[in-house]
Amino acid sequence: MTDKFIYAFGGGTAEGRGDQKELLGGKGAGLAEMSSLGIPVPPGFTLTTEACRFYQRNDRVFPPGLREEFREHLTRLEEIQGRRFGDLQDPLLLSVRSGAPTSMPGMMDTVLNLGLNREIVDHHVGSGEKPRFILDCYRRLLTMYGDVVLGVPHARFEKVLSAAREEAGVATDPELPAEALLAVVEAYEQAIAEAGEPFPQEPMDQLWGAVRAVFDSWDNRRAREYRRLHHISEEWGTGVNVQCMVFGNRGTDCATGVAFTRNPGTGERRVYGEYLINAQGEDVVAGIRTPKAITGAGDDPGLAGDYPEAYEALEKVCERLETHRREMQDVEFTIEHGKLYMLQTRDGKRTGLAAVRIAVDMVHEERIDRREAIRRVEPSHISQLLAPEFDLEEKERAIVDGRLLARGLAAGPGAAAGRIALTAERAEEMAASGPVILVRDETSPEDIVGMHASQGIVTSRGGMTSHAAVVARGLGKPCVVGAGSLSVDEEKGELRVDGKVFLEGAELSLDGTAGEVISGALKPRPSEVLQVLLEGRDLGASPTAQAFQEILRWADDERRLKVRTNADTPADSAVARALGAEGIGLCRTEHMFFNEDRIGWVRQVILARDAEERAEALAHLLPVQQEDFEGIFRALEGLPVTVRLLDPPLHEFLPHERKAQVAMAEKMGLSPEAVAEKVEAMSEANPMLGHRGCRLGLTTPEIYEMQVEAIVRAACNLVRAGVDCRPEIMVPLVGVREEMVRLRKMIADVVARVERDEATELEIPIGTMIEVPRAALIAEQVALDADFFSFGTNDLTQMTYGYSRDDVGRFLPFYIEAGILKHDPFAQLDTSGVGQLVQLACRKGREARPDIKLGICGEHGGDPASIAFFDRCGLEYVSCSPYRVPVARLAAARSALGYHSGGKETS
Amino acid sequence: MTDKFIYAFGGGTAEGRGDQKELLGGKGAGLAEMSSLGIPVPPGFTLTTEACRFYQRNDRVFPPGLREEFREHLTRLEEIQGRRFGDLQDPLLLSVRSGAPTSMPGMMDTVLNLGLNREIVDHHVGSGEKPRFILDCYRRLLTMYGDVVLGVPHARFEKVLSAAREEAGVATDPELPAEALLAVVEAYEQAIAEAGEPFPQEPMDQLWGAVRAVFDSWDNRRAREYRRLHHISEEWGTGVNVQCMVFGNRGTDCATGVAFTRNPGTGERRVYGEYLINAQGEDVVAGIRTPKAITGAGDDPGLAGDYPEAYEALEKVCERLETHRREMQDVEFTIEHGKLYMLQTRDGKRTGLAAVRIAVDMVHEERIDRREAIRRVEPSHISQLLAPEFDLEEKERAIVDGRLLARGLAAGPGAAAGRIALTAERAEEMAASGPVILVRDETSPEDIVGMHASQGIVTSRGGMTSHAAVVARGLGKPCVVGAGSLSVDEEKGELRVDGKVFLEGAELSLDGTAGEVISGALKPRPSEVLQVLLEGRDLGASPTAQAFQEILRWADDERRLKVRTNADTPADSAVARALGAEGIGLCRTEHMFFNEDRIGWVRQVILARDAEERAEALAHLLPVQQEDFEGIFRALEGLPVTVRLLDPPLHEFLPHERKAQVAMAEKMGLSPEAVAEKVEAMSEANPMLGHRGCRLGLTTPEIYEMQVEAIVRAACNLVRAGVDCRPEIMVPLVGVREEMVRLRKMIADVVARVERDEATELEIPIGTMIEVPRAALIAEQVALDADFFSFGTNDLTQMTYGYSRDDVGRFLPFYIEAGILKHDPFAQLDTSGVGQLVQLACRKGREARPDIKLGICGEHGGDPASIAFFDRCGLEYVSCSPYRVPVARLAAARSALGYHSGGKETS
Repeated sequence: MTDKFIYAFGGGTAEGRGDQKELLGGKGAGLAEMSSLGIPVPPGFTLTTEACRFYQRNDRVFPPGLREEFREHLTRLEEIQGRRFGDLQDPLLLSVRSGAPTSMPGMMDTVLNLGLNREIVDHHVGSGEKPRFILDCYRRLLTMYGDVVLGVPHARFEKVLSAAREEAGVATDPELPAEALLAVVEAYEQAIAEAGEPFPQEPMDQLWGAVRAVFDSWDNRRAREYRRLHHISEEWGTGVNVQCMVFGNRGTDCATGVAFTRNPGTGERRVYGEYLINAQGEDVVAGIRTPKAITGAGDDPGLAGDYPEAYEALEKVCERLETHRREMQDVEFTIEHGKLYMLQTRDGKRTGLAAVRIAVDMVHEERIDRREAIRRVEPSHISQLLAPEFDLEEKERAIVDGRLLARGLAAGPGAAAGRIALTAERAEEMAASGPVILVRDETSPEDIVGMHASQGIVTSRGGMTSHAAVVARGLGKPCVVGAGSLSVDEEKGELRVDGKVFLEGAELSLDGTAGEVISGALKPRPSEVLQVLLEGRDLGASPTAQAFQEILRWADDERRLKVRTNADTPADSAVARALGAEGIGLCRTEHMFFNEDRIGWVRQVILARDAEERAEALAHLLPVQQEDFEGIFRALEGLPVTVRLLDPPLHEFLPHERKAQVAMAEKMGLSPEAVAEKVEAMSEANPMLGHRGCRLGLTTPEIYEMQVEAIVRAACNLVRAGVDCRPEIMVPLVGVREEMVRLRKMIADVVARVERDEATELEIPIGTMIEVPRAALIAEQVALDADFFSFGTNDLTQMTYGYSRDDVGRFLPFYIEAGILKHDPFAQLDTSGVGQLVQLACRKGREARPDIKLGICGEHGGDPASIAFFDRCGLEYVSCSPYRVPVARLAAARSALGYHSGGKETS
Repeated sequence: MTDKFIYAFGGGTAEGRGDQKELLGGKGAGLAEMSSLGIPVPPGFTLTTEACRFYQRNDRVFPPGLREEFREHLTRLEEIQGRRFGDLQDPLLLSVRSGAPTSMPGMMDTVLNLGLNREIVDHHVGSGEKPRFILDCYRRLLTMYGDVVLGVPHARFEKVLSAAREEAGVATDPELPAEALLAVVEAYEQAIAEAGEPFPQEPMDQLWGAVRAVFDSWDNRRAREYRRLHHISEEWGTGVNVQCMVFGNRGTDCATGVAFTRNPGTGERRVYGEYLINAQGEDVVAGIRTPKAITGAGDDPGLAGDYPEAYEALEKVCERLETHRREMQDVEFTIEHGKLYMLQTRDGKRTGLAAVRIAVDMVHEERIDRREAIRRVEPSHISQLLAPEFDLEEKERAIVDGRLLARGLAAGPGAAAGRIALTAERAEEMAASGPVILVRDETSPEDIVGMHASQGIVTSRGGMTSHAAVVARGLGKPCVVGAGSLSVDEEKGELRVDGKVFLEGAELSLDGTAGEVISGALKPRPSEVLQVLLEGRDLGASPTAQAFQEILRWADDERRLKVRTNADTPADSAVARALGAEGIGLCRTEHMFFNEDRIGWVRQVILARDAEERAEALAHLLPVQQEDFEGIFRALEGLPVTVRLLDPPLHEFLPHERKAQVAMAEKMGLSPEAVAEKVEAMSEANPMLGHRGCRLGLTTPEIYEMQVEAIVRAACNLVRAGVDCRPEIMVPLVGVREEMVRLRKMIADVVARVERDEATELEIPIGTMIEVPRAALIAEQVALDADFFSFGTNDLTQMTYGYSRDDVGRFLPFYIEAGILKHDPFAQLDTSGVGQLVQLACRKGREARPDIKLGICGEHGGDPASIAFFDRCGLEYVSCSPYRVPVARLAAARSALGYHSGGKETS
């Protein structure tokens, strides 16, 4: 640790640098950088994160020497500005703002206008010198300090202010006359004093109180929650920025705003953002007043019209920052009497759509290279582009039917439908039983967990940079904000819209791309990108689809891992292929069994009283299975298709309802009681660990024989028709060497028999899933009879942890909440436990059979962090659901390039 | 392979040696050895197992040169005996008998009297020279050759013979006159010819036919079955012994018999066996006629009276053989005109009781040393000594009540009760649903599997060396043979006794130690050894108990592994301690929860609506749990007691019957529907992998806290009373490091709190079970917070294989039957899969914490083969059920000495 805890900036120079985010925090580093670039930044200084860490580790004691260093820097500011902090006539006012190394929006706290007290205010009111401006600043100071430092509920201040507005007969705060404001600040002071200690009148006490509050806020509940959700280390700490105030609330030639150097929703290359006239920065971020768009709307020319010089300056600053930082920026600015001041710059958050487009555009602009573009597009961005949308016609019908409840800002793209929850707590509860839409007047950091649990978020207030909008985009959730016609009554559990009332639990749909809120549940459907790709439309019509394809082609050039898909139907196979799948890694045969035209025969196979009855049923199933396979093989022409033989316990196929049992009994000439008895007799205490997979293949070989025959006949048919068809046969649930020995022989025998019969020669690899821990442990034995291994990481995770996926809901959420597990091992592969088995099986498998092909077909095959692990294991491919294929392609490229793709090491 | 396939013996010399069992088979080696020792053995020669292996591997073709070699040896026999094979006047008759390297009683086949044909018989009948003897020999030849070589059902011959006896008005075969015998042999010849090919009249054809039949019989179903059950290699092959006949059926001064050098039932040091006058060997072994005891009975002096010289010779031979072989022998002999000939010697099979007593006696006789005694006593022998017996009073009451159905020979010690099965197939079927007693007129090798499935075996015919008796003793099953008043009607499914009829499925009890068959089900109770030890009686009163204690004390001197027990009550703890347990390795706390006085409170804990209701219930449970622990700690004074905290899912404790739900609802002031709903809501799809073990401890910490408090208060109370009490606390189902971190802290906190409260200091190790595969994989992390590991190999096996113990019955029997698995992995540890995890966890645990204590408390802790594996892993202790403790002590000693204790490597 050094003994320098404070770094100055402003006036065209800075002690710190833009790359010192860990030391100065993101905000401090950004301010230092802008200052060095000659961008107009009000002068100030940054207390380092080291100071915060010292404070946190030493029972909230500041590091030795800090106060002296602080005093020196404050004196410097007074000299630059030519004003004294605490001066009665012309006081220097300061802001104190947090800034952690990683942006944590809304998590940390800000206090503006520090340096005012009643004496100063009274002096100005008495002298009639800018009394309204001083009163407004003091009001804001009391609110923020009261709330953030002293813990007085925000609502108390809001109540006073509302009453004052009503009494004065005005709609907005800027309209309040000075006398009314004086009454307000007196009421504020009283509210603070009543809640505990009075507001400190000594300016230096205010300053230190605010610094302490920022340091303390690193450790508050919502900050910890945010860090947990975003995997941010508890260790880092936050910086504190003390900065001279510039005022957006000094009159109508003043404003405050936030902007992105490009559109964070679409990626369009144009300064984008919002501003509020005669307001301070917190008004925008808090979403209290709905701001104006910088780009204007309709006839309104926007910022360029209101403040032409400042607008021009802003455009130049944005271009300068992008050139320097080679990244889209998210900036805060204030216009004081027409002059632009920059208060913050940071890399901007964006939707998936924008991320892809910006990355691709920046390559074309030659700001970055392709690999950097791949680094910047997160796998979650890709999945956002594939997020569902509503069917346009269905949505329009709903609108024509009068179901459009509100329009708001399209703050998070994508479509979602679910039941209304009006509080974050309810959203969490309700999410257990189905999709939820969280509807609030506005959200706050306390709502994070509930937002996480919801499918989509709607607020009645706030703008594109409101808390709800920022968080929703980060989470990749569809979001509509500022839907002003909605009004939430939490107490009554009602959502009111234009006289209509919707109770909590009613169905609601939201289109976060269009900014629409619609009553009832619309059915989300594939995104624009998906539609373009799946329908094979011209990419020129969709810049998004074009960018999507471009980044993925670049990714394909970088990755080593192949990406296959898990698909059971020709339709799914076609989707996957259109999205870049290089084969099928898992074709489950059991789903086919449930089709109405075959389940009866499947049941007869199970309930058969003798070999003849069973043979009859199998003879009916053979041609339909064969047809299924032909369709799939055709869709995957030229690519491998791994077919897994029957896996689930037969019990799953039996009728459990009395009616279906009676029907089945009739079909087979049995008594309904006999069927019911058989169903009962076949039920298992722990079906997950029961009579399934290859255990069935050995005890009831006829089913596997039929399936293999169907595969081989299908392949022979196609080969004769000139179709390049590459089936692979996979045995599930092997755990004992002898299982594989016998089943390989059985399969090879059927293959040879059918080949002879069809007079066609094929080469069909026969392999196994590695999903039982024992199979991994004895992989060197299993490999002797397996041409390939495919890791079934779902079951492998179940058995390695001893967790039933069906039951884990009873404790896994608690485990994750309490930090016992860092993540859900079914979503992200447990590299330290389950991963050990994967690595062991890879090593042993290769030792026994150097040319063995290794892949993975569990759901982890679509998880970026897991994909990186599989890449390190040297697997040949991952296989995932069709819609995850593009995500996997990107994740595989990022892994090859050594980029981190989220996820933490397991515990 | 050498080119010598035949070894001669007889006349005081032999080409082979007694230690060449692998080459000559057991019988051939024994004959060679006896011959070399100068014991009278009819001359002969042995075809080696190499010849058999050649034959098996070359499509049933004899090795080149074998026929010539055979011819030379036959010529030698003709020269010694001065008779020609096939001679009309005075033909040399030969026997052909199998002899595998390991004794396989009843599995292989024998043909006597080879060398006779109709021409020779007719010549003798015509000349009146010994016609009856020749006819009897020819009759036997036809029966055996027809049955064994030509596959004509034995029953056909039996039917002819019965009819002949009836017609002649005689009871036994020796009484049949020559004329009747002539008619019999003619009928036999006809029966054979009708069944296929006629009986070969050329003596050399007979001889080769018999040799071929022996070689072929190595590969028949029952031989394979026996080898599978006894883990005998398929590779070995059998020898064939061709030997000059001596005749026990040449008149009343002739006899044939079998003997043991000591009593194979009790171990008493006295020649023991049976003989039949005027009979051939097969009559004894087959159990067709009930033989006389060598030691006599009542006034009958036995063999010493009937043939004093031969008896004296037999005693000397027995002593000679024991001195030479240092082991109890099982011999076959024939007396021809008063002169003794030995036909076989081999190490004798014996009951557990005899094995222990003979081994201990032989140490005292200085024939063997203590380690050799330990080698000779198999763990299964020890468990036989602990096998249940009936309560004497209860049994006597049953006898007074007229329930004694039959007395027979006490062929296999121990008591058993179950339902009657009259065929081996039925026994197999019925065994699935409860204990079965197999009752047959006599058993044959085809019955092996059914005998295995039964609790006990009863036959109406046969002696101590009949098939049933020999097999039952080998399997350690209680067995009564020769219970002549019983008569089995398989077709009607009836057992008839003195006019009473018992249907298949009726209850029956048998006392294999006393030889009694009793109707109805008596309750088996602990064996004599157990009673003596548990009641602390003087060992002098029971030679068996004395020998038992002696061998186990010797074992204790040799073993490294400690042996603990799994016990949940003071009573079980006391039993285990009396049997030598050195602590408790697993004290389950959940069994205590089911007691009537507490299950209601347990349910209230689960169903509690709030913390208060839960606390009330826990407050009721605390003192009773504390009392339980005090009792157990007191019983194990001075020894460690590992208490496992609650493991099963809470659902198990809830009432599932409507009535119990109503009662519970009343107690708690809930509606019965609410209780039913909760029960339903808590049920799980796969409870084995559900919300249980430490997962409960973390989500519902109050239960663990109560349990820990009960343990610590109990210990404090005892320590203050001067009792040396050593509790250890064990956390179940850990799979994630953080589980152990938090639970260790929680437990340590409660321990510290109660210690302060009780003003007593204890040292309580806190450890975990390793039963989830992941725990083994990350053992180095778990060890950081665990003072000890105890392997829960039951769950570890379930999860490593993905087998649910509750459901495995659907395929595991098939797997074992079909040879997919070599054994039940829940009975014998799977060393190659599950064992890998055990070894890994041992290594990682020790690396992280060199002083970590390692043990195992799964059911494998009582399995000898598994114990040997745990010994190799360097565990400190195994823990098993109380009655397995002596078995484990012996197995641990055998492991330390490098002796094999059964079981095969896993696949």
